[in-house]
Amino acid sequence: MDKFWSDVTRQLTPYVPGEQPRIDGLVKLNTNENPYPPSPRAIEAIRAAADGALRRYPDPDATDLKAAVGRFHGVPVDQVFVGNSSDEVLAHTFVGLLKHDRPLFFPDITYSFYPVYCGLYGIDYRTIPLADDFAIRVEDYGQDAGAIIFPNPNAPTGLALGLDAIRTLLAAHPDQVVVVDEAYVDFGGETAIPLVAEFPNLLVVQTLSKSRSLAGLRVGYAIGQAHLIAGLERVKSSFNSYPLDRLAIAGASAAMDDKAYFDQTCQAIITTRDQLTKDLQTLGFEVVPSAANFVFAKHPAHAGADLLAALREHKVIVRHFKHPRIDKYLRITVGTDEECGALIAALKQIL
Amino acid sequence: MDKFWSDVTRQLTPYVPGEQPRIDGLVKLNTNENPYPPSPRAIEAIRAAADGALRRYPDPDATDLKAAVGRFHGVPVDQVFVGNSSDEVLAHTFVGLLKHDRPLFFPDITYSFYPVYCGLYGIDYRTIPLADDFAIRVEDYGQDAGAIIFPNPNAPTGLALGLDAIRTLLAAHPDQVVVVDEAYVDFGGETAIPLVAEFPNLLVVQTLSKSRSLAGLRVGYAIGQAHLIAGLERVKSSFNSYPLDRLAIAGASAAMDDKAYFDQTCQAIITTRDQLTKDLQTLGFEVVPSAANFVFAKHPAHAGADLLAALREHKVIVRHFKHPRIDKYLRITVGTDEECGALIAALKQIL
Repeated sequence: MDKFWSDVTRQLTPYVPGEQPRIDGLVKLNTNENPYPPSPRAIEAIRAAADGALRRYPDPDATDLKAAVGRFHGVPVDQVFVGNSSDEVLAHTFVGLLKHDRPLFFPDITYSFYPVYCGLYGIDYRTIPLADDFAIRVEDYGQDAGAIIFPNPNAPTGLALGLDAIRTLLAAHPDQVVVVDEAYVDFGGETAIPLVAEFPNLLVVQTLSKSRSLAGLRVGYAIGQAHLIAGLERVKSSFNSYPLDRLAIAGASAAMDDKAYFDQTCQAIITTRDQLTKDLQTLGFEVVPSAANFVFAKHPAHAGADLLAALREHKVIVRHFKHPRIDKYLRITVGTDEECGALIAALKQIL
Repeated sequence: MDKFWSDVTRQLTPYVPGEQPRIDGLVKLNTNENPYPPSPRAIEAIRAAADGALRRYPDPDATDLKAAVGRFHGVPVDQVFVGNSSDEVLAHTFVGLLKHDRPLFFPDITYSFYPVYCGLYGIDYRTIPLADDFAIRVEDYGQDAGAIIFPNPNAPTGLALGLDAIRTLLAAHPDQVVVVDEAYVDFGGETAIPLVAEFPNLLVVQTLSKSRSLAGLRVGYAIGQAHLIAGLERVKSSFNSYPLDRLAIAGASAAMDDKAYFDQTCQAIITTRDQLTKDLQTLGFEVVPSAANFVFAKHPAHAGADLLAALREHKVIVRHFKHPRIDKYLRITVGTDEECGALIAALKQIL
C-alpha cells in the first residue's frame, strides 16, 4: 500500500533515536540528558503560563525568548534565531544557509543527523576524516566547500576544538558559512559566540536540552550576524509552521535568566565526568578527553557491542554506534555520581 | 550580505501571519482563536507535567496522545499521526504523500499555506476554481491529479462540503491520496473520519488550536489507514526533529479526553455565530453560510479593505485577503457574545 507514498518517502532511511524505555529502575546513560532537573524558575514560569492564554497563538517571533538569549550571551536580538530544539534550528540552517552548488563539508565522525538533513533537502556533501585521535584538523577543510558544519565539542567523541583553530577556519573561508554546533559546549568547551561580531560567516547553534535540563521542552537557538539570522527567519516564516509554543517560550526564557543554577549544575556534571573518566581508566578503558556531558571510551579487551549488551543485563543503558571507525567505543552520558557509580559497579562485575 | 543564503532562501516569499498585537483593549477577531479558555483538565495536566521530568526527552511516539486521539475518534493508534500543529502535520503530508509526478490539485480559494508548501518542497500544483458561490465542485477534480487536498469547511470561506460529495471524490480517485483538512470541522461540519475505514486513500487532518482552545500549545493530528500513517512516520522519523514536547503531550491528551467541555464550548461558538450572522445581515452584509468559527462577509456598499481600516480605528481587528475573488470580504472570527457585540456596534457607527 505504499503506492501512495512520494518517491522521497520511499527512499528515506528513518533515523533511530536513542531508546526511551518506559521501565523503572534503569540507569539511563544513553541519550545525554542532564541528571539534574531544570531550574526551579523555569518550572515556575511554565506553570504560570499554563492558563487561559493558551487559547491564543504564541508570539511568532518569540520575542521574550530572543531577549533572554541575547541577555545571556550579550548579543542584540537581531542576532538570535530560536526554534523547536536545535535540531529544528539545524534543519532551517541546512535549507537556508548550507545548500549551495558546492558540497557541504563535515567530519566523517559526527552528529548522525547531518547526512540525513542533506538527503532530505537534496544537499551534496563530503565527509572529511578526523585525525586518528579524533581531532578535527581545520587544514583539511580546503577551498572546495560550499559551507562547513561541525559540532564542538564533536559528537559522539566529546573532543573539543579550540577557538584559535575555529578562527583560522573562519578566516580561511570568508565566503562560506561555517556552522559551529555547540550542543555540548557548556560542559568545558569554549563557545565561538565571541567571534560572531568579527566573522560574518559564523553561525553558532546551541540547545536548552543539555546544559539547561530541558530536553522535554524542545528549544534551541542560533547566534550569528543579522544577515544570517534574516536568512533563517526567511525560511522559517515562509512556512511558519513551527513557532515556539507559549510554554516553551516562558520556560526557556526563565531558564536562560537563571545563570546561577546553570553554572552550578554544569559544574556538578564536569566534576562527575572527571571522576567517571578516572574510574573508567582504572578499569582499563581508553577515554577520549571529553568537554561534553558524556564520555567516549573503549576497552582493549571487550567489544563495544558486547559491553552494551552486558550492561543492559545490569539495567544500565549506554549508546553504541556501528560506524567502523568507532564501533569499539561506548558513549556514556554523565549522570549523577550515584548513576555513574552504578555503571562502574556493573562494569567491574562484567570485566 | 545575502551571499550566504541558499538559492531557495532567496526565492522564498515569506508568509505573513495574522497580527498578534500586544495592545490591551483590542477586540481581536482576526486569527480564528477560540474565545474560551482550554479545558481546565488540560491546564491541570500541563501544570502537573511541569516538573523535573522535563530534563528527559519526550516520548518520540507521543503514545499517550495518540491513544487519547484514538479514544476520541474510535480509531486504533496505528491510524493516528501527531505533530506540532496541523501545519506541521500538513508539511509532513506534502512531502510524504502529496509530492508526485502529476500535480497536486486544490481550490483556487483555500488555505494560503498550500502553495507555500508546494514551493518549499518542489511540488507541482494546479488550482481548481470554486463555483461562484464558493462551493467546491468535486466533479471539477478530474483524472490528472497526483493527489488532492482541500479544507473542509474551506478557508477562508467557512463553507462546508457534505460527506456524500467527499465520498464521491474518494471513489473517483482510488489511486490518489485525498487529504481533508478539518481544522474547523467541529463548529458544524461533518468529519470524514468515519470514511477512513472504507477508503485507503483518505487522510483527515485536525488541530487542537481551534475547537480545543490550544493555539498556544501547537498540536495537530492526522487520521488515516495505517499505510498512510506509516508514510508520515517515515518522513517524521527520518529526521525526528520535532517530537511533541512533554507539556504538549500532557495537555493535548487531557483536552481530547474532556469531551463535555469540548461539546459545550463548540456549541457556545455555534450559537454566537448564528447571532453574528443575523446581525451582519441586518446591517446589509452578505454572509457566506459558515460551518466554522468565523464568518466570511461582504457589504455591497463598502470595500473590505476600507472596513478593515475603519474597524481598526474602533479597536476591532478582523482579517482581509487581497486575492481578487475575495477582496470585497472580511473574515471575522466568532468571539464571545460581548466581542461580537462590540464588532456590530463598531460597524453600526462606520456604516
